[in-house]
Amino acid sequence: MHDSNANHRGHIRPAPESFLEPELVADISANGVNEQRRGLLRGALATAVAAMSGAALASESDPDIVNIPEWSRILGKSVATNPYGLPSKYEANIIRRQSPGLTQTDQASVAFTPLQSTFGMITPSGLHFERHHQGWVDIDPRRHRLMINGLVSKPLVFTMEELMRMPSVSRMHFLECGANTALEWGNSAVPTVQYTHGMLSGSEWTGVPLSLLLERAGFDKSAKFLLAEGADGSSMTRTINMENALDDAIVAYGQNGEMLRPEQGYPLRLVVPGVQGVSWVKWLRRIEVGDMPYAAKDETSHYVDLMPDGLQRQYTSIQEAKSVITSPSGGQKLMSNGYYCITGLAWSGRGSVKKVEVSVDGGRSWREARIEGPVLPKMITRFNFDWVWDGSETLLQSRVTDSTGYIQPQRSELVSVRGSRSIYHNNAIQTWRVNQSGEVENVQLG
Amino acid sequence: MHDSNANHRGHIRPAPESFLEPELVADISANGVNEQRRGLLRGALATAVAAMSGAALASESDPDIVNIPEWSRILGKSVATNPYGLPSKYEANIIRRQSPGLTQTDQASVAFTPLQSTFGMITPSGLHFERHHQGWVDIDPRRHRLMINGLVSKPLVFTMEELMRMPSVSRMHFLECGANTALEWGNSAVPTVQYTHGMLSGSEWTGVPLSLLLERAGFDKSAKFLLAEGADGSSMTRTINMENALDDAIVAYGQNGEMLRPEQGYPLRLVVPGVQGVSWVKWLRRIEVGDMPYAAKDETSHYVDLMPDGLQRQYTSIQEAKSVITSPSGGQKLMSNGYYCITGLAWSGRGSVKKVEVSVDGGRSWREARIEGPVLPKMITRFNFDWVWDGSETLLQSRVTDSTGYIQPQRSELVSVRGSRSIYHNNAIQTWRVNQSGEVENVQLG
Repeated sequence: MHDSNANHRGHIRPAPESFLEPELVADISANGVNEQRRGLLRGALATAVAAMSGAALASESDPDIVNIPEWSRILGKSVATNPYGLPSKYEANIIRRQSPGLTQTDQASVAFTPLQSTFGMITPSGLHFERHHQGWVDIDPRRHRLMINGLVSKPLVFTMEELMRMPSVSRMHFLECGANTALEWGNSAVPTVQYTHGMLSGSEWTGVPLSLLLERAGFDKSAKFLLAEGADGSSMTRTINMENALDDAIVAYGQNGEMLRPEQGYPLRLVVPGVQGVSWVKWLRRIEVGDMPYAAKDETSHYVDLMPDGLQRQYTSIQEAKSVITSPSGGQKLMSNGYYCITGLAWSGRGSVKKVEVSVDGGRSWREARIEGPVLPKMITRFNFDWVWDGSETLLQSRVTDSTGYIQPQRSELVSVRGSRSIYHNNAIQTWRVNQSGEVENVQLG
Repeated sequence: MHDSNANHRGHIRPAPESFLEPELVADISANGVNEQRRGLLRGALATAVAAMSGAALASESDPDIVNIPEWSRILGKSVATNPYGLPSKYEANIIRRQSPGLTQTDQASVAFTPLQSTFGMITPSGLHFERHHQGWVDIDPRRHRLMINGLVSKPLVFTMEELMRMPSVSRMHFLECGANTALEWGNSAVPTVQYTHGMLSGSEWTGVPLSLLLERAGFDKSAKFLLAEGADGSSMTRTINMENALDDAIVAYGQNGEMLRPEQGYPLRLVVPGVQGVSWVKWLRRIEVGDMPYAAKDETSHYVDLMPDGLQRQYTSIQEAKSVITSPSGGQKLMSNGYYCITGLAWSGRGSVKKVEVSVDGGRSWREARIEGPVLPKMITRFNFDWVWDGSETLLQSRVTDSTGYIQPQRSELVSVRGSRSIYHNNAIQTWRVNQSGEVENVQLG
């Protein structure tokens, strides 16, 4: 079902033996739990690194070390050879990947972000996941319009230039499809983090606060909901709570410093922080103000949760707190025992990340991971965790606690409430098993 | 000397008349000065927007409003049509631009970031400015090595895979060429912000703290300086203060969530927050630990400051606090009077941005701008400022105050100390003149 995502980072190469002593790593982890102690952490790590065997890394009989490589002997390429730059040719395997057969057509399908190869909290726009309902279009911004109608005193139509002259905000928020991690409800255990969690991205969004546009149209105080409608062939329509609309929603034209990409809704997309991706309507053309939910196709026959009693739960739009280890992760191979920097992502649709813990024994014990700041509301947070692999079979997990105090559940806890017949809203703890061979696999516990 | 950078955002289109009343904008600006009062600001803006004339925007006889455009009638393109995504075809003019003739060859030249068209604090990697000394190269990461030698107890050589297994950090920092705004020392007044300030970018960097590598090599306590050396044909070498190296410098492989771009030093670059870009050595292959500055070519014959007394000032590497209005800016045209959201960037190599003020009368009076968070140390900060243009000639300026209390100087203040024969380290206040025609021009006051 899945094509290969091998790349030069798919295998994790031999480390020097005893890169860090396990006791030292334990000390680092115990001391390195929060930002305030970063100085201490840094000192501890430096000591640890100094204690390593340098010789193991320093000697190689590679002729490049003594011979001068060609790139040091040539006149390179001119500036603006690529007026819009691209990744190195050596990174050609770091791409969005479709999951063939997941849907009946490639236009109504998914291409996943290679989370095993991304860093930090910003997802490169070129690798932002795609989920379309009737394919993507490249709209002429001069001809695009946004209408606001319904329960308003003054229906309005905006051009892009009018919107881009208005007061703007720039904010970083995660975007996760409600169907992310969908296949883990069953026993399929897809092989890599790209396919288990790759409908997730973090971006800086720029645009006009939706509240400004609604105030300007004179929305009726009886209004409780909005309908957001896209201009692509699917005319995607979603009900938005007025509470979200007036809080932090943005009518966005910018993503990561430039105009939205076509696959992300160019020239206009609704940003609804914390809410599942389908509600971030792309190619946004209309917002209708109403007083009840709209019960559109994609909120009645799709994006609903089938509960154990056979009833469908609707309008469960908030993405609950969730985390995942992105490396080591399924499909990778540890080529030797020794030190590894476990890294991953954590997020919550209800606020910010309070702490992340990592278990290397399948959830029996937990230690806090280092958080890479800044920690922002409704945004991806990067965590790192020092680990020395002793060569034995190991079960790796991460769990997040968010600013509301909510703790990400084990799969068994989630299934006990939700059953296992859902498609959407799976925020269970992910388990990766490191086999004695070093191969990492997706496994489901309990 | 400069080619056109016209684009669909080069002209700022007519706004509805009386978009905001001037008194209201004054009120917004007075109340909207800090993050803590964002709620108040938002309310004030909403009221302001509600007070506008809606009719002026709502009616157009554009047939697209009644006819269904083609993109709403077709089956769009499949997911992963572009496994690595690109901007819309309508954004083809938003590119890095060279300044032909600025240097004798195109390999040792500059391509500038189109700041007039970027948003927020993250610069898209495809638009990150380029400054090369012998062109750019695309190095095979499997053959690249980093050596640490000099005053160390244990010289070391690292492969990329070894570096990428080590403890990592991710941090957002600005990168500014020491020669940014160089042509403004004279009277040339280049036309656009792309050319006056476009050697500036903000990114999230990921890599290994340099301090870890130095500790591991066992650097001598007498060490005061490092030499950082690149692997391209120019073998760029720069002296780095040990203080910077041990504070927050990073040996980085990641930028904005993915591997560095070739033009940015793939696969390895030195990140020295707050320090001028030339010291962020690209294609980093060697770090030598020493006890005195190295007096390399690019720190004796270049990147020095010619003072009024005829002496050269060396090793002035910190980029002082600076800001610039990116829109409206030179080359743009205001097509009508009325409301504009003035936007720009502020940064400081010595800390974080404390406040940004905007003047619409050439520096006689100042009002605080809204800061778009998060405000991070040694990182670009975006500011916005509400303004109603009354159609008269106007001089627009911004000035930043950083966390050390330093205030960005007027050009006349800077020139009184530094003279006007320098090339590097020009952090003067930039002035844009809005003519009665609406055309915006770069002018130098005093």
